[in-house]
Amino acid sequence: MQQFELTHNFLSQLEGLIDAGEKQQITNQLKDLHPADIAEILNELNNERAQYVFLLLDNETASDVLAEIDEEERTHFLESFPAEIIAKRFIDHMESDDAADIVGSLPDEQQHEVLSHIDDVEQAGDIVDLLHYDEDTAGGLMAKELVIVNENWTVLTCLRELSRQAENIDEIYNVYVVDDDNKLKGRLSLKKMILSPTSAKISNLYYEDITSVKTDEPAESVARIMQKYDLVAIPVVDSIGRLVGRITIDDVVDVIREEAEKDYQMMSGITQDVETSDSVWSQTKARLPWLIIALFGGMVSAYMISCYEAEIALFPVTAMFIPVITAMGGNVGIQSSAIVVQGLASNSLGLKHGMQNILKELGAALLNATICSSIIFVLTLFFKLKTLAMPITVTLSLFVVILFASIFGTAFPLLLHKMKIDPALATGPFITLTNDIIGLNIYLITGRIILEYF
Amino acid sequence: MQQFELTHNFLSQLEGLIDAGEKQQITNQLKDLHPADIAEILNELNNERAQYVFLLLDNETASDVLAEIDEEERTHFLESFPAEIIAKRFIDHMESDDAADIVGSLPDEQQHEVLSHIDDVEQAGDIVDLLHYDEDTAGGLMAKELVIVNENWTVLTCLRELSRQAENIDEIYNVYVVDDDNKLKGRLSLKKMILSPTSAKISNLYYEDITSVKTDEPAESVARIMQKYDLVAIPVVDSIGRLVGRITIDDVVDVIREEAEKDYQMMSGITQDVETSDSVWSQTKARLPWLIIALFGGMVSAYMISCYEAEIALFPVTAMFIPVITAMGGNVGIQSSAIVVQGLASNSLGLKHGMQNILKELGAALLNATICSSIIFVLTLFFKLKTLAMPITVTLSLFVVILFASIFGTAFPLLLHKMKIDPALATGPFITLTNDIIGLNIYLITGRIILEYF
Repeated sequence: MQQFELTHNFLSQLEGLIDAGEKQQITNQLKDLHPADIAEILNELNNERAQYVFLLLDNETASDVLAEIDEEERTHFLESFPAEIIAKRFIDHMESDDAADIVGSLPDEQQHEVLSHIDDVEQAGDIVDLLHYDEDTAGGLMAKELVIVNENWTVLTCLRELSRQAENIDEIYNVYVVDDDNKLKGRLSLKKMILSPTSAKISNLYYEDITSVKTDEPAESVARIMQKYDLVAIPVVDSIGRLVGRITIDDVVDVIREEAEKDYQMMSGITQDVETSDSVWSQTKARLPWLIIALFGGMVSAYMISCYEAEIALFPVTAMFIPVITAMGGNVGIQSSAIVVQGLASNSLGLKHGMQNILKELGAALLNATICSSIIFVLTLFFKLKTLAMPITVTLSLFVVILFASIFGTAFPLLLHKMKIDPALATGPFITLTNDIIGLNIYLITGRIILEYF
Repeated sequence: MQQFELTHNFLSQLEGLIDAGEKQQITNQLKDLHPADIAEILNELNNERAQYVFLLLDNETASDVLAEIDEEERTHFLESFPAEIIAKRFIDHMESDDAADIVGSLPDEQQHEVLSHIDDVEQAGDIVDLLHYDEDTAGGLMAKELVIVNENWTVLTCLRELSRQAENIDEIYNVYVVDDDNKLKGRLSLKKMILSPTSAKISNLYYEDITSVKTDEPAESVARIMQKYDLVAIPVVDSIGRLVGRITIDDVVDVIREEAEKDYQMMSGITQDVETSDSVWSQTKARLPWLIIALFGGMVSAYMISCYEAEIALFPVTAMFIPVITAMGGNVGIQSSAIVVQGLASNSLGLKHGMQNILKELGAALLNATICSSIIFVLTLFFKLKTLAMPITVTLSLFVVILFASIFGTAFPLLLHKMKIDPALATGPFITLTNDIIGLNIYLITGRIILEYF
């Protein structure tokens, strides 16, 4: 299959075909495309045109495409379809996890209506089961479609059962083995089964070393386990060990990406997941809280500077070096916090964090502080200031500010982590602000002391 | 399998056993653990103890563990083993992609020696082949282990061939179908094969709709394709379409995570991948470049303020609001760039980026600027400044600074992207610095004009 790349050309041609109502030609254009590609095209079309195209797709493709469309667009998109169409044309043909996601995103009223129209009772039951779980847990990620064999079966029974069970499943990654109580015992390798005589008993073939998660395991922890053990699928069990579902890696990849994006947004001072496609108002809402905090922080700085108004009037050069001190404090603080936050996120800090990290950070900070202060001392000499008082003030305070910002930037996320608060909070504008304010104080106090003695 | 969690207790007990030379007990402790868990334990032990434990593992486990250890630790770790041991005990038992990664990380001289000691000629050949590819391409990610069937075979021949080929492969995700020239034709579903009569011809069973990548496809693009199409494995072909390898999702998960981490580091002003476990010197090296750039940027700010020394001497309160102006400009700029960089990274910007994004950003910026300026106007009134000149200066210049920083923060990463430069560069201290300098100028010029007229 050739990889599809969406072009302006393709899009305007398609829009032309839609407006002219050329159903056959549109169907031809789309028939070789992957559902993910069709979803990408629909995202670019206006709602009316998208619906027109959507109704030309066969049920199977339409449900796959629906599962790929962004949640926000999808909700908007589904509003215009009656519950019966949603149920019969789309939900009936989906895997249970996608189906539950879509039903879960509908308004409560529509949910019940859609559920009542699903022909496949098993599918409807699975969706209702899945809707009970918090979406950020293993239960919320899992699908109910499973290939299950009983440990007492033979390979032959297995093969027969598989052909029945596998009907609704895209691809078999793992065959799970359970006992008569449906408790998870292990996994059966398809490879091993194919290579065994048909009379062999499953209980002699399966592997017992299987990693599973409970339904209430948090999504991030599922992601961590699957990454650590390089798993493509993981079975989900209930509190007494009965097999209830499985999670595949493609769902977890989204969790991993969202985790990384959350940290990134936190650092950039955005309070929620916004995209360039969101409305002006939702973009503003996501950004304003941090900006207002930064504003108040800035006013604290302003107040502190006002306490030194006399010095500044006497030595206006003091003002010159305010930005360099705050910028350096901010940068050093962010660097330190980012390293700790990444270490905590990837679990690579190991057991020996805490004091040891702070000590090592102190070493790097001393080195950085010494080098940067030396450079700034030389640079300030170019400013032809009357006395050495100013260069010494700037050099000394920069040294202290770098040390302080490093230690604070390292210790603060560790402290948050200990207190079970998301340490990424420490990388946002918050740490820059605190470092600004404290750095400024260090600078102004140093200045007052030194200028007094010169 | 119970999930393993490494505790201080476990570690000190194990260290005791190692120091006492209790081989049997150590083996018992480790025998039920996953290689990834053992790797985690070895990471916490000192080099000597880790080697002691390592040599107690059987060859299969040892090579799995080796593939899981961090690259840096591993290089350090392998130094003390002779080439023959590395080849015979570890490399021989690994999948070709892991083997090539490890051989590739050895010094040139040791590489040749290790390769010459590998007993399995096919494995040695595969490693040599893989070493040719850039590690950031599909070729560098792929493994040579493949389950391949010819389109002219029957299901029976297939099953026989699979049992031979599958011997070296952990798990079969996909069976690839090739023609007599080894050109990729499609994929065979194990499910479909199991459910077909043994006399059926493969050419009638396989699916043609298979997505593949060329060996020179960049790693990020492989990751994007696998995510978009929810693939667990993807075949890799050479320039004329012959099947040469496959990439599995677990290797791509690492690429996805590293991509996200790279953007994160760029934003936090760290030039390379550092971890808390790295030495003080390598941490300093990663951080110093940006700090020095920030330092020079700060000196530019200082120079610019010095041009307004007369005003500041006359109105020392001018200095008060320098931090709030620079902080707000910096925060707004980072927010804007981060949204664009994330949009570009997740490919969610769609076709309509460029002008449209800048216009929307302008809308959000106007809203943010209006709200923040209004707040600051009220706040400055609390400072009991003698005239309204200062509040008006601060309010007006904050408004302009927010507008400017938003537009610059949006346009700059888009420009970098157009020029094929990593747009994440725009989120680093660079944008903060530029915004600091330009914001400062806007503030001081506004101040000069307004104070002149009051």
